[in-house]
Amino acid sequence: MPARAIGRIPVTEVFPVVEDGTWPAKGAVGEPFPVRATVFREGHDAVAATAVLTAPDGTDHSWAPMRDVAKGLDRYEAWLCPDSPGLWWFRIEGWSDPYATWAHDASIKVDAGVDVELMLTEGARLLNRAADRELPGDGVAVLRAAAATLADGTLEPGDRLAAGLVADVVAVLAADPLRDMVSPTVAYPLQVDRRLAQAGAWYEMFPRSEGSYFDAKSGRWVSGTLRTAMPRLDGIAAMGFDVLYLAPVHPIGTTNRKGRNNSLHAKPGDPGSPYGIGSPAGGHDAIHPELGTFEDFDAFVARSRELGMEVALDIALQCSPDHPWVTEHPEWFTTRADGTIAYAENPPKKYQDIYPLNFDNDPEGIYVAIRDMLEVWVSHGVTLFRVDNPHTKSLQFWQRLLTEFRAAHPDVVFLAEAFTRPAMMRTLGAVGYHQSYTYFAWRNTKQELAEYLQEVAAETSHLVRPAFWPTTHDILTPFMQQGGTAAFALRAVLAATGSPTYGIYSGYEFIENIARPGVEEQIDNEKYEFKPRDWNRANDARITLLLGELNRIRHQHPALQQLHQLTVHPTSNDSVLAYSKRIEARFSPTGEDDVVLVVVNLDPFLTHESLVYLDMEALGLDPSSPFRVHDELNGQDHQWNATAWVRLDPQASSAHVMSVGPL
Amino acid sequence: MPARAIGRIPVTEVFPVVEDGTWPAKGAVGEPFPVRATVFREGHDAVAATAVLTAPDGTDHSWAPMRDVAKGLDRYEAWLCPDSPGLWWFRIEGWSDPYATWAHDASIKVDAGVDVELMLTEGARLLNRAADRELPGDGVAVLRAAAATLADGTLEPGDRLAAGLVADVVAVLAADPLRDMVSPTVAYPLQVDRRLAQAGAWYEMFPRSEGSYFDAKSGRWVSGTLRTAMPRLDGIAAMGFDVLYLAPVHPIGTTNRKGRNNSLHAKPGDPGSPYGIGSPAGGHDAIHPELGTFEDFDAFVARSRELGMEVALDIALQCSPDHPWVTEHPEWFTTRADGTIAYAENPPKKYQDIYPLNFDNDPEGIYVAIRDMLEVWVSHGVTLFRVDNPHTKSLQFWQRLLTEFRAAHPDVVFLAEAFTRPAMMRTLGAVGYHQSYTYFAWRNTKQELAEYLQEVAAETSHLVRPAFWPTTHDILTPFMQQGGTAAFALRAVLAATGSPTYGIYSGYEFIENIARPGVEEQIDNEKYEFKPRDWNRANDARITLLLGELNRIRHQHPALQQLHQLTVHPTSNDSVLAYSKRIEARFSPTGEDDVVLVVVNLDPFLTHESLVYLDMEALGLDPSSPFRVHDELNGQDHQWNATAWVRLDPQASSAHVMSVGPL
Repeated sequence: MPARAIGRIPVTEVFPVVEDGTWPAKGAVGEPFPVRATVFREGHDAVAATAVLTAPDGTDHSWAPMRDVAKGLDRYEAWLCPDSPGLWWFRIEGWSDPYATWAHDASIKVDAGVDVELMLTEGARLLNRAADRELPGDGVAVLRAAAATLADGTLEPGDRLAAGLVADVVAVLAADPLRDMVSPTVAYPLQVDRRLAQAGAWYEMFPRSEGSYFDAKSGRWVSGTLRTAMPRLDGIAAMGFDVLYLAPVHPIGTTNRKGRNNSLHAKPGDPGSPYGIGSPAGGHDAIHPELGTFEDFDAFVARSRELGMEVALDIALQCSPDHPWVTEHPEWFTTRADGTIAYAENPPKKYQDIYPLNFDNDPEGIYVAIRDMLEVWVSHGVTLFRVDNPHTKSLQFWQRLLTEFRAAHPDVVFLAEAFTRPAMMRTLGAVGYHQSYTYFAWRNTKQELAEYLQEVAAETSHLVRPAFWPTTHDILTPFMQQGGTAAFALRAVLAATGSPTYGIYSGYEFIENIARPGVEEQIDNEKYEFKPRDWNRANDARITLLLGELNRIRHQHPALQQLHQLTVHPTSNDSVLAYSKRIEARFSPTGEDDVVLVVVNLDPFLTHESLVYLDMEALGLDPSSPFRVHDELNGQDHQWNATAWVRLDPQASSAHVMSVGPL
Repeated sequence: MPARAIGRIPVTEVFPVVEDGTWPAKGAVGEPFPVRATVFREGHDAVAATAVLTAPDGTDHSWAPMRDVAKGLDRYEAWLCPDSPGLWWFRIEGWSDPYATWAHDASIKVDAGVDVELMLTEGARLLNRAADRELPGDGVAVLRAAAATLADGTLEPGDRLAAGLVADVVAVLAADPLRDMVSPTVAYPLQVDRRLAQAGAWYEMFPRSEGSYFDAKSGRWVSGTLRTAMPRLDGIAAMGFDVLYLAPVHPIGTTNRKGRNNSLHAKPGDPGSPYGIGSPAGGHDAIHPELGTFEDFDAFVARSRELGMEVALDIALQCSPDHPWVTEHPEWFTTRADGTIAYAENPPKKYQDIYPLNFDNDPEGIYVAIRDMLEVWVSHGVTLFRVDNPHTKSLQFWQRLLTEFRAAHPDVVFLAEAFTRPAMMRTLGAVGYHQSYTYFAWRNTKQELAEYLQEVAAETSHLVRPAFWPTTHDILTPFMQQGGTAAFALRAVLAATGSPTYGIYSGYEFIENIARPGVEEQIDNEKYEFKPRDWNRANDARITLLLGELNRIRHQHPALQQLHQLTVHPTSNDSVLAYSKRIEARFSPTGEDDVVLVVVNLDPFLTHESLVYLDMEALGLDPSSPFRVHDELNGQDHQWNATAWVRLDPQASSAHVMSVGPL
C-alpha cells in the first residue's frame, strides 16, 4: 500500500501545507486563517467536513464546519484561530452526513409519494440514533420529539416529515452533527507567534543623529548618544508606534570607511556607515563608544518600554576589516589564492569596506558566535532583530538559528531585510523568519496594489508575514521622490492599513524626498553622516499627525491587525483603490464584527472621483440595505449603499479610512 | 528542528508530487516526463541542479541537468524517462557550481583588469581540482592542459582566460560537472506502468450483436455468440487497434429487466442490458449461456492475441436482483427499514433493476469476492478491465484493489469509467487507476480543446492518464448528432492524435448519430437489443479507412504515443486548432527526433482558411528556416515556414496530420 492510505471519505489537497507538511505554516495569536481541502465521496450521499485546530499541548482547541467554496470542484474551507504562541496543528475530518442525506432524499420522495412510510421510519431511526449521544441543553429532547412525530402514523406524512426538518432539529445537528465514517487527515503543523510578530508599527532611527551637532570650534561633528536620543522616544511613542528600531549600534571600522554620500574614502570626522561593523573597540556584541555604554543602552530600552515600545536592533552579519573576528578567526572568512581575505563583491562591483563571513568554513563556530552575540542583545532587552541582507547567508544557518531561538526565546522576533527574488524571500519566511520586508515600495498602480494586497494576504501568508515600508534608509522610489507630501501621506495610509505590520524611517515626517543622483535612496544619507532634525517642525507637513491617527485607528480596529481577511473592491477609476479588512465577531477580541474600508486616491497630484462597487458579503452587510461609514480620519459619518461615490483631493486628503457597520 | 532540514542549496516546491509524496505520481515506460523544482541559493555564486531517476531496484538510472524555465522565479526543469515498469523514484540535487561562478567573475574581472593574476590562478586551481576526478575519454587531459595555460604567466592574460573557457573544457564539465555542496531532496515515488497503460487504441464491441439475427420463424432474435463474433476480429485488427474491449459478458437478470430504448419493462425476447448482471446462471464470474462457454472465451482471447490485440473486459460492480450474491450474501447489500433490499436510486430517479453493493457492510468479504472474480478473468487472458462507474464505490476499496493487483499482475490495466467532477476523477487516477475516461467528448471549440489538451498533457498527467473517446455506448453529444460524417472524422483525428490512448465504439464507422429523444445516447441502443451490422459496408463513410490510417500513423510515430510533450500553436481562425507532439531523439525508440503536427478544422460544415503561427522551438526547428511537412493522411509533402497557411474543406478532409522535420 502507499505510504498513506486514503480515508473512507477522501480529503486531499490540504492547504496550508508547506513542503509536504515537513515545515510549519505561519500563524499568529488572534489571527483567523483559512484551511482548505478537497473533500468528496463516492455515490450520491451527503458529505461534510470539519476543520480541527489542535493546541501545542495536543488537545483539540476548536473546530469549524467547512463549506463548499467552489461549486463543482469539491473545495471546502473553514476559518480557525489560535490564541497562544507555539507549535499548533490542524487536521481535516471528512465525514458522511446521514442527516443531510436523509433530509435530501426524504424531501423529494415524500413529496413524490414514493417510499413515504419507509423514509419517515428511517428518519425517526436516524434522529433517535442522534439522540443516543450526550448533547448540551435540550438537544436530546428536541431530537426525541422530532423522532416521535416522524414515527407517528396517525399524522399526515407532510407534517411528520416537517418535524424532521424544523429549525431546532437542524440547529441541534449543526452544533453536534451526526458524523459517520469520520476520516481524519494527518495533522499539519502551524507555527503560531505572538501578535507583535505579525502586527505592529515600527519606527526606525539612527540614534547617533539625535543630539549630534557641528562643533564650529573644532570644525567637527559631535555624535549624538543613546542618552541624547532618549528624549526623542516620547515623540515617537506619542504617535503610537509599537516598535523602536535602531540602526546598528556597534563600533564602526576605519579601514576603507565610506564617506558622505557613499564616497569611497571618508574624510576626517566622517562617522562611517554603521553597517561597516567592527573596530578595535569591538564587534557585533559591542556598542560604539561614541553612542555610550551598555548601561546607556539598558536605560534606552527601559525608557522605550515605559512608553509602550519594544526595541528592535539591526543586525548586519558582515565585518569591517577592523572587526576583532578578522584577527581572532581569519578562518571565518574567505582567503584568496594570494593569501588576502576576500572583501564583498558582485563583479564588477566591489565593497572593500566589508568582509563577508564564509559560513561554510566553520559552520559550527560561526553559528555559536552569532547565537551568543544575539543572546547578549536579548539579555539587554532587545526583543526584535531586523536582519540586514539575510539572503546572502545560508538558509541552513537561518533554519537552525530561528528554530533554536524560537525554542529558547519564543518572544523574540526576526524581520528579514531581503529585497530579492520571490523564492528566497518566501523561503526565508518558511524556515522561520517572523516577518519580511516586501515589494510594497514598488507597487504603485491600482492593479499592482490590488494584486499585491491579495498576494500577501492570501497567497503567501502561510509562508511570509509582510511588513510594508514606504521608504527605508536604503529605498526612496521615484514615486516618493516625485509625489510630494501627498505621496508620503497616501503611502503611509496604504502601509498602515494594507498590512498588519508597517514601518516608517525617521525623517518621513519631513518629506525627505531628494535622491542622491543615480540611486533610489536619500541624498546626504544618514548611513554616512549625522542627521539631526528639528522635531519642533515635525508636523509642518502634517505627516506626524497622520501617523498618529493611523496608529490610533490600527489600535482601535482589530480588523487592521489581522492579515488574511482582506477584500479588494472594484472601482470605476484606475487611480482609486478600495479595499477592506474585517474580523468576524467570533474571532474579534471585542466580540463584535470589525470592518475597516479604505479608499485611496493613488494620484498624488490630481483630484479623482470614482464609484466604488462594494462586495457587501465581504463587509458582512446586507447587499440591499444602506449602511453607516465613519471616516476615522476626519470624523465624518455617512450613509452609503453597495455602490458608493467618492471624490478625493490629494491636497486635502488622499484617503478615506472608514469603520463600517449597519445603520 | 522541523521534520525536514533545508539543504545547503535549497530545493523546494518539487513537482510531480502527489499528496505530500505519500502516493506515487504516474509514469509510463518510454514516457519522458518533466520534473520541476525551485532551486536557489544565498549570495551571488552560481547555482545548478540535477534531476536523478532511480530504478525500482534502488540504483540511479539516469540524470539530467535542470534548466531555469522561469527567469526570476528560480524555477528549474528537466526531463527524465523510465524504461521498465515498477515503482521508480526521483530526486533533485541542488548544488553550487564553482566553475560557472569562476567563469562569470573571471570574465568580468580580467576584462576590467581587476585581480587578474588572482582570478587566473584560482581558475587553474579549480580546473586541476576538476581533473583530480576520474573522467571518461580525454577529460582529465583537457582540464589539465587548460589549467596549465591558465597558470602560465608568460602568456597574455586574455589568452590564459580563454583557455579556461573554451568549448572542450565546457563540454567536459557539462558531462561531469564539478558539484559542490550537493543537496539532494528526499526521493519522490513514480509508479511506472507498461506502455499499453498509457498508449493504445481501443475498440469496443458487444459480442452478442455479432452474428445475431431475427428468426422470422420463431419471431424472436437469436443472440450472437463469442464464436460468431470472432470473425469480426480480423476487421478490427486490420484497422490497427491494440485493444478489443468487450461489453459485459455475464448472465443478465430478468427481474425488472429493461426493454428496448431503456423502457421499464422488457418484452419477451428482449435480451436485457448486460449491465444488469447476474441470474441463476451465475454472476460476475460467469459467462452468459447465450454467449458461450469459457472455452469459447479462451478461443476468442487467443484469436485476438494472434491478431495483435489484447482483450479488455467491462466490469460493472452491481447486481441484478437475480444475482447469486443477493441470496448468498444479502449482507452485502443495503436493507431498508421495511426489510427490502435497496435498489439503486438518485432521488427522484430509480433503477429497480440494479442492487448496489454496500461496501461498508462487509468490506473484507466483498473485497475478496471481487478480487477473486477478477482473478478468474485474468486467468482466462483478460489483461485490461474497463470499470463501470467506479465513482460510486469507495476510494479505499479501489486503492487496495489496485495496489494489490499491481503487485500480483503488473501487466493488468484498469480504465476508470467515471464521468463526474474533477476531484473524484483525478483521485481515482491517483489511487491507482491506470487510465481514465475524460471530458474530451464535451470539448468542441478551439479554446476548449486547446485548454483541455494542455490540461491532460501537463497539469493532471501525474494523476490521470487520459483516454479520449469521441462516443461511447452511453455518450452521443449534440456535436456528434449534428455534424454528420465530418464530425465523426474530425473527432477521430482529435482523439487518435490528442491522447496516447483513445477508443472507438463499434458502429462509429457507420456514423450512428441518431439520439434517443431527450438523452445524449444512441437510439435503439445496443445496451438493450441486438445490433448486427453489415461490415461489408463499413467503409461507405470512409471512417474505417481513416481509423486504419490514424492507427498506422500512431504506430509509426512515437511522438503520438507519449503524453507530456504537447504544444498548442496559435492560429488566426477560431475554427482551426493546431497542436504538435514531439519526442526528442534522446528519448525516442527510433533514436531520432519525432514530431507530428496536427491542424484540424473544427467546423464540420464549412471550409476554413487560417494562418498557423508555429512555435518553432517546440517543434525542434530553427525559427528562421523553412522545413518539411509530410501529410500522413494524403501523402503530400510541403515546405513550410514558421507562419503557415492552411485551407481545410470538411467534405474532403478536416485535418492535416503531418510529420515534421528539417528539409
